Amino acid sequence: MYFSARGHEVHAMDNYLRRRAHQEAGTDTLTPIGENLPGRAEAWRQVTGYRIGVTEGDLTDWPIVEKLFADVEPEAIIHYGEMPSAPYSFISREHAVYTQYNNVIGTLNVLWAMRDYLPDAHMVKLGTMGEYGTPNIDIEEGFIQIRHNGREDRLPFPKMPGSWYHASKVHDSTNIQLACRIWGLRATDLNQGVVYGIETEESTLDQRLATRFDYDEVFGTALNRFCLQAVIGHPLTAYGKGGQTRGYLNIVDTMQCVELATLNPAGPGEYRVFNQFTEQFAVNELADLVQRAGEEYGLDVKVDHLDNPRVEAEEHYYNAKHSALLDLGLKPHYLSETLVESIFAKIEEHKDRVITKAIMPKTLWRPRARVPQPVGE
Amino acid sequence: MYFSARGHEVHAMDNYLRRRAHQEAGTDTLTPIGENLPGRAEAWRQVTGYRIGVTEGDLTDWPIVEKLFADVEPEAIIHYGEMPSAPYSFISREHAVYTQYNNVIGTLNVLWAMRDYLPDAHMVKLGTMGEYGTPNIDIEEGFIQIRHNGREDRLPFPKMPGSWYHASKVHDSTNIQLACRIWGLRATDLNQGVVYGIETEESTLDQRLATRFDYDEVFGTALNRFCLQAVIGHPLTAYGKGGQTRGYLNIVDTMQCVELATLNPAGPGEYRVFNQFTEQFAVNELADLVQRAGEEYGLDVKVDHLDNPRVEAEEHYYNAKHSALLDLGLKPHYLSETLVESIFAKIEEHKDRVITKAIMPKTLWRPRARVPQPVGE
Repeated sequence: MYFSARGHEVHAMDNYLRRRAHQEAGTDTLTPIGENLPGRAEAWRQVTGYRIGVTEGDLTDWPIVEKLFADVEPEAIIHYGEMPSAPYSFISREHAVYTQYNNVIGTLNVLWAMRDYLPDAHMVKLGTMGEYGTPNIDIEEGFIQIRHNGREDRLPFPKMPGSWYHASKVHDSTNIQLACRIWGLRATDLNQGVVYGIETEESTLDQRLATRFDYDEVFGTALNRFCLQAVIGHPLTAYGKGGQTRGYLNIVDTMQCVELATLNPAGPGEYRVFNQFTEQFAVNELADLVQRAGEEYGLDVKVDHLDNPRVEAEEHYYNAKHSALLDLGLKPHYLSETLVESIFAKIEEHKDRVITKAIMPKTLWRPRARVPQPVGE
Repeated sequence: MYFSARGHEVHAMDNYLRRRAHQEAGTDTLTPIGENLPGRAEAWRQVTGYRIGVTEGDLTDWPIVEKLFADVEPEAIIHYGEMPSAPYSFISREHAVYTQYNNVIGTLNVLWAMRDYLPDAHMVKLGTMGEYGTPNIDIEEGFIQIRHNGREDRLPFPKMPGSWYHASKVHDSTNIQLACRIWGLRATDLNQGVVYGIETEESTLDQRLATRFDYDEVFGTALNRFCLQAVIGHPLTAYGKGGQTRGYLNIVDTMQCVELATLNPAGPGEYRVFNQFTEQFAVNELADLVQRAGEEYGLDVKVDHLDNPRVEAEEHYYNAKHSALLDLGLKPHYLSETLVESIFAKIEEHKDRVITKAIMPKTLWRPRARVPQPVGE
């Protein structure tokens, strides 16, 4: 919708992966998404007059990918088509395998389609800041200049992903970089931080154009979930000590970033990485912010520190660079109490749709039996 | 056979991937492999009295993997079960996808089986030196201490794989390391160099126990192929300038390395990497050696520098560390003219089986149309 509103010809593809995962788990987005892809495109046309082409299909299905590339001939491929959840990838072996199969094979198909049909197109790929993990040194944007034993080279930044999902995006990065090097393809890997917010200029034009808002343990993310918990009077669920620090950005800034990457494409054979976030926060800082905003808004917000279902550092150094998109002209919308209160207001509209049992974490990184139990329990 | 002869209980699994790939391509191993896995185990029993259990099956087939782990309960899993060829992974999109599917999903299944059935077992995984590519700094064994902006950390060595196959092993390394970190599993990743040689102590006991010797463009490797070419009077096929430098090791040393890794297992939660090779050579050095050995042996050996079918640096810095296995007690068998002549002799025994058309490279890393053509052609 963002690109279409700005005069670009857009064709969208969806395999409804997230909807199926919600169905499987008995959960749902807070904002109602009633229409399928064709219905949403039709609503967009009715509201704006712009047409968006649609394909209901899966990137792992090569004949569909091949036909799409041959028919549509895109100049840019915005590749969001991945299973996006770390907890999902730990539900079971099947979920881990599905995550890596879907993400790695889907991306491989896109690369081969570019090679065969559109070697000058530009892939804008949604990576994740989670590919880096939490190293004890500054995180650079994709590459690092290493001096070692009197020599030096610019090499891929070492990756320490913390889940099968994050690992699948590391695999993608390796594959995309290889394709650029051997086939001369162009690609931008957007290592995105955690997105918060609930709407964009386009999604508010009509209720049929709403974007999803997930708060469940599998697809929900820290700040959005905290906001929802504050509104329904559920304690904020901070995992472990709450010192986990990550990059965050507003949903409206994600659109700006993808546009900037697309309008300023990578060169032939170039694989570049932009760290896509605007501010760093620790979980505890977000909980404090939501608590303060809640007080202002008239909500009584408590914070619970749960046993961490994940295996991750809860106190660590974190300093990630993110200047490439700012250099291209990104104008950040920073986080504030006012913004949090506007999210509260939006959540209140759909408060009756909240499935409370979806909130608490049930998916563990490590099987129970592997966690050392204190004597006597 | 090596482990069985040393008193270990061994269970072997094979999906006959290489045999199927040879059938598909109309090629074959030089040394005849007549028996399937059960026939080979039976031959081994007849010759030595030792029994080796067998499973004909595929690591991507979870019920088989699960049953195997539950029934056999291995203390160590020697994981060689991967599609091992860079050219194979470039034959077509289907071959690239199959390579990454087979290797990544097979390894994921082994990790989940270890988690569910044998969290204290030790995985000894066959990686490849090709995961590193050819960086302009010394290659360390899996990890590198990086000092950056006044801080430092020991991080995974940056990887620059040069094919879909090599990339699949980078993916495996990322996944195995993650499993060790979150589940406390034990793993040793053997980043193996190019193996040469044609037989081991065990494989020569009976012709039914012969190991394969591949010389075709897909599964053949530099030194073995050069030896065969010398014997049949085919020019040695050096790709490009021939300055490509890699680590090499004798097939008998591979057995020593796997044994050393297995008898000295990684600790709980430890993911360690050994670079498994004994000497570095450039392609031109190997061609010279084979030429000199040929002269001694009475062969007239010519060298052809072919257009390189691969995309790779043909002149580059290369210095890879490989002290971990030496520290554990590896006694290398170094390359020599005498050894090359013994390979000549073995090849001569099967000279009539050579399929000459399998030798020249046909699989290109980059589609022809993407290679800039000189004007007038």
